[in-house]
Amino acid sequence: VTQRDETLRKLCDLAALVGGRVVGDADLLVRGVSGLAEATEGDLAFYNNPRYREQLKATKAAAVVVSEKGLAQLDGRPAIVAADPYLAFAKISSAFHPAPRFAPGIDPRACVEAGAEVDPTATVMAFAFVAKGARIGERTVLFPGAYVGEEARVGRDVVIYPNVVVRERCSVGDRSILQPGVVVGGDGFGFAFDPSVPCHFKIPQAGVVEIESDVEIGANTAIDRATLGATRIGQGPKIDNLTQIGHHVKVGPLCILCGQVGLAGSSELGAGVVCGGQVGVANHVKVCDKARILAQSGLLADVPGAGGGCRPPSSAAGTP
Amino acid sequence: VTQRDETLRKLCDLAALVGGRVVGDADLLVRGVSGLAEATEGDLAFYNNPRYREQLKATKAAAVVVSEKGLAQLDGRPAIVAADPYLAFAKISSAFHPAPRFAPGIDPRACVEAGAEVDPTATVMAFAFVAKGARIGERTVLFPGAYVGEEARVGRDVVIYPNVVVRERCSVGDRSILQPGVVVGGDGFGFAFDPSVPCHFKIPQAGVVEIESDVEIGANTAIDRATLGATRIGQGPKIDNLTQIGHHVKVGPLCILCGQVGLAGSSELGAGVVCGGQVGVANHVKVCDKARILAQSGLLADVPGAGGGCRPPSSAAGTP
Amino acid sequence: VTQRDETLRKLCDLAALVGGRVVGDADLLVRGVSGLAEATEGDLAFYNNPRYREQLKATKAAAVVVSEKGLAQLDGRPAIVAADPYLAFAKISSAFHPAPRFAPGIDPRACVEAGAEVDPTATVMAFAFVAKGARIGERTVLFPGAYVGEEARVGRDVVIYPNVVVRERCSVGDRSILQPGVVVGGDGFGFAFDPSVPCHFKIPQAGVVEIESDVEIGANTAIDRATLGATRIGQGPKIDNLTQIGHHVKVGPLCILCGQVGLAGSSELGAGVVCGGQVGVANHVKVCDKARILAQSGLLADVPGAGGGCRPPSSAAGTP
Repeated sequence: VTQRDETLRKLCDLAALVGGRVVGDADLLVRGVSGLAEATEGDLAFYNNPRYREQLKATKAAAVVVSEKGLAQLDGRPAIVAADPYLAFAKISSAFHPAPRFAPGIDPRACVEAGAEVDPTATVMAFAFVAKGARIGERTVLFPGAYVGEEARVGRDVVIYPNVVVRERCSVGDRSILQPGVVVGGDGFGFAFDPSVPCHFKIPQAGVVEIESDVEIGANTAIDRATLGATRIGQGPKIDNLTQIGHHVKVGPLCILCGQVGLAGSSELGAGVVCGGQVGVANHVKVCDKARILAQSGLLADVPGAGGGCRPPSSAAGTP
Repeated sequence: VTQRDETLRKLCDLAALVGGRVVGDADLLVRGVSGLAEATEGDLAFYNNPRYREQLKATKAAAVVVSEKGLAQLDGRPAIVAADPYLAFAKISSAFHPAPRFAPGIDPRACVEAGAEVDPTATVMAFAFVAKGARIGERTVLFPGAYVGEEARVGRDVVIYPNVVVRERCSVGDRSILQPGVVVGGDGFGFAFDPSVPCHFKIPQAGVVEIESDVEIGANTAIDRATLGATRIGQGPKIDNLTQIGHHVKVGPLCILCGQVGLAGSSELGAGVVCGGQVGVANHVKVCDKARILAQSGLLADVPGAGGGCRPPSSAAGTP
Repeated sequence: VTQRDETLRKLCDLAALVGGRVVGDADLLVRGVSGLAEATEGDLAFYNNPRYREQLKATKAAAVVVSEKGLAQLDGRPAIVAADPYLAFAKISSAFHPAPRFAPGIDPRACVEAGAEVDPTATVMAFAFVAKGARIGERTVLFPGAYVGEEARVGRDVVIYPNVVVRERCSVGDRSILQPGVVVGGDGFGFAFDPSVPCHFKIPQAGVVEIESDVEIGANTAIDRATLGATRIGQGPKIDNLTQIGHHVKVGPLCILCGQVGLAGSSELGAGVVCGGQVGVANHVKVCDKARILAQSGLLADVPGAGGGCRPPSSAAGTP
């Protein structure tokens, strides 16, 4: 559903969009964005890494987004010079790929139970299910196979891709995006061994998951509900595919969790923590603000800041 | 769908429920359970770890479940003293959070093929699919998007959450719980290289998965069917989210598999084995009863018991 | 839906099927294939590993597929001698387990949007969804809960198991098999930090995933779409469960990825690479043809071939 907007735009207008400076023909017409290697006539490309210098020389791009430092390598090609070329390119790409719009309304093949509240501007596609007491906000989209449980709350401008599950009483904040197969609110992993049976006695997982706004969650990631209280995802984190987030975990605002990270029960990440792929964090471990955890690390103990506060950025790595 | 029962209960009745002893006002009315930090008036909380001593001092809980040893730290607050406070708290929490009940019957928007047998007390929600020859037992619940394949058997009192897949001829025992997105019976990963094409020739995965009773399986976990014969999960294991269980694996009774564990084909866990998060067990490796495998370990060789028998509990850890 | 064909076959006919040589009664009737331990009268079993010599002695199998070298251990039992007994057994098993056939047609409870093209020989089951502009090839099967997005292309003889998602504009080649819960085309994990807000600005993931023919993808595996251009899976790889494949990744022909592997964005695997379970490959890392990466390894740098070309087979292992 990501669409390409075919409108031609002037290089100067794109520069203005990102607060950049034009070098060369300000009226050059740009038709889209592309990688250096794939660009064809009329494309705007992006250069920020000397690793790709050969691609830069050979590119057919009409213009390039570049830093002040990289400008000298362009050999006179038209450019937009920006303080952060990556961010500038991202914003220009967004102009050429506006968010898709969906016709509002509830497909007759969807199931919205009595007592659910779906905003009239929301879209509920075939085979989506909204249980009683659930609320779906303005312009939010539920794709086929999405399930929103009893009394769950989904904010406005949320995109819930196919086969996502948001179980009962959990909440998802505004502008969040749940990629296909995400599970929010599965039962936490809590059992007490009862030797008299013997069995692992199931502890009721009566809590919820609370996800704030602007959170993106990757395909097939699972976030468990708390035993009591809430598992909390703050404002703005981005979470990659196949990540495991246990019960009572706290993920601070603006964290980045790469693919296949596992956060065990009651672990806590401060603000702006970055976890590389396949990192594991043990039960109850606390990680300070802005810590950077290398891929495949296993954290068995807290990553504290200095002096009781925080010493960002800190790095931690290694296996137990 | 986890509901809270708002009935007030006397402290002495709760103590009787768990074989505990009341200290203080036996007629104290309790309205629910809560964490020490979140408890408000009328709540019963739980204390078992000196790490939370400050929370104990500050709690607003009306009473606390505690061990004989921890009792001295309560400063006269009413208590239930139990040999295993964690288990006692779990049982009391269950009294306040009874399993939800569902109206029996097949939703007209579900698809139950001719030749499937669904017990009249079972619940089949909209968009659930039961293929021909499948059997669904008493009081079992299929949420929306659940798929039960041809000739699969699901026992009684099973909960199958949204978008779970149980493929053809597999079986799930009584009282088991499959969290959203679980896949039971995907094809095992078996190929024979044929250099004459070249290709990886697919070996038919003609076996099944057999899951005994009282098994809980976490969100988006995958358990593969055997090439021939069966992948077997014994009675009572608890398996966390995003776990990979290959073909022909045997998981003994009462094992605990934490999140993102991977058990490669034909590996075998004895009874009561505990695997920490992200553990990997290689093909054909056998792990003795009650072994405890540390998080992120990679097991390339058997974890034997002593003298041909077993030496529980043993621990194994490390990377290959 | 894997069915067993109960036809009795002569040992000589089975040998001819795989280019093998009969030892013993050529007219012996075989009714099926089985493991050495589970075989009963009339079964054909397979022996290739001295680890299972005791099972060979005790087996009730009527005949055994074996290598020239293993023949001496059979004590006169009828046999098919094959250069590659494993491949021969796989092919014989396929004869006894032919691919299931499905009645063609679109179930009235499926949703095929106007403008989608579904070949009349394809099967679209209840609750499957095919969006406008999508194309489904000859004899391809969509199980319940499968979702194929706008303008996606699915080839011929493809099997799409329940609750698989193929998002918009992605493509899946002929004879591929997607196990339950697979997600193809979730958004790549691309954000640019904008300190002025602050937020992680979402970079549009306007590219696609292109999967060639004869690819098998395991349950709940996720393959992300590219930012621009394509994430590419070549011809013939086999990918196990719960694998993470980031945006712009290239997986060469005939690769084998075991369970829970993670390939970070823009990493590239050559032809015939084998990754053991839980391997992680970092961003932009290139792995040469036929490299073998040990389980749980973390690759932070390229695995090059010798002299600018490739030195297969190479091995790499270890944690960062």
